[in-house]
Amino acid sequence: MRQAQQTLAVNSRGRGLYEFTDRVADWVRESGIREGLLTLFCRHTSASLLIQENADPEVRRDLERFFSRLVPDGDPLFEHTVEGPDDMPAHVRAALTQTQLSIPVSGGRLGLGTWQGIYLYEHRHESHRREILLHLLGE
Amino acid sequence: MRQAQQTLAVNSRGRGLYEFTDRVADWVRESGIREGLLTLFCRHTSASLLIQENADPEVRRDLERFFSRLVPDGDPLFEHTVEGPDDMPAHVRAALTQTQLSIPVSGGRLGLGTWQGIYLYEHRHESHRREILLHLLGE
Amino acid sequence: MRQAQQTLAVNSRGRGLYEFTDRVADWVRESGIREGLLTLFCRHTSASLLIQENADPEVRRDLERFFSRLVPDGDPLFEHTVEGPDDMPAHVRAALTQTQLSIPVSGGRLGLGTWQGIYLYEHRHESHRREILLHLLGE
Repeated sequence: MRQAQQTLAVNSRGRGLYEFTDRVADWVRESGIREGLLTLFCRHTSASLLIQENADPEVRRDLERFFSRLVPDGDPLFEHTVEGPDDMPAHVRAALTQTQLSIPVSGGRLGLGTWQGIYLYEHRHESHRREILLHLLGE
Repeated sequence: MRQAQQTLAVNSRGRGLYEFTDRVADWVRESGIREGLLTLFCRHTSASLLIQENADPEVRRDLERFFSRLVPDGDPLFEHTVEGPDDMPAHVRAALTQTQLSIPVSGGRLGLGTWQGIYLYEHRHESHRREILLHLLGE
Repeated sequence: MRQAQQTLAVNSRGRGLYEFTDRVADWVRESGIREGLLTLFCRHTSASLLIQENADPEVRRDLERFFSRLVPDGDPLFEHTVEGPDDMPAHVRAALTQTQLSIPVSGGRLGLGTWQGIYLYEHRHESHRREILLHLLGE
């Protein structure tokens, strides 16, 4: 049994979902670990992780429409507005989605279903460089 | 240290919560691994995983009422309606709950609290056969 | 490769976010495991886990304001009111946040980002003693 760790940088260009499934799958394959458990951890509180459908891009647009309505920018409810009207909504969206994901690995491949992709969900309007920790344990 | 993997099929009969704690507990016990970490992973984007109270069935009905109101079927906000009015709401509900759960195992038993059960949350109205990956690491 | 387990009690004094990052970091350091994966598991269905910003306390107050509005106490939608108007809202809030978190460990330290803290999110108004399972795997 052994483990591997890596920091992956995902560059966002404003709010939305950014798929990086292939980069994760490549790293897992190159590690040589065939059976194990992969964990992804997002080191931010205004971006998060999400597994979603990667077939129809409308799904991601609708998802964003839903979150924009549920947690409106500039909501007078919020007092923490230091970094602008999307500051606090970004923290709420991160709380409602995932900071961490674990995925079983078998035969050197991620156990994702046919339509599942791994996404960084950027909640801020400006571009950011987001760090995702990858941890793989297995043999 | 060793690991075990298994695919569990959970058959849903329409939207709602389906408990499968016992099947998971049985598999863990039969693995012979006494101390370790169990991970469950749902291979779908319109069904998800949830740990909830398994005492009073009203809790599950109320939970479903809440999600039905928060993410209404047929909401004109959504453009992705290929598979019907519950298509996009199913993806949103999956994003708001969990695709994956990890539970420590001690003495061959899941570390669940007294009232906790493991549920598949089916978000579509039709019946589905859902695949849950189980991964156990320990000794 | 080896593992360590521990039960941590976090005492809440009513609804809100309680940081316990330092206690977790101390336990990891004392375990002697330098590279690995830490998993936290909340053994309750009316409290949950959350990674959030630990700089400005306004963030936690705004987060609580948001959840109070999204899942109002005493909502007539709910039938499960045995333990009072905050009973069912507590279960919904737990479903919308996390029961479990896994964090990679490197150099004996948690892989948290600069502004990230680990919180127990108590959803009931009364004080509770909450049990969090800690599981660490590595070497």
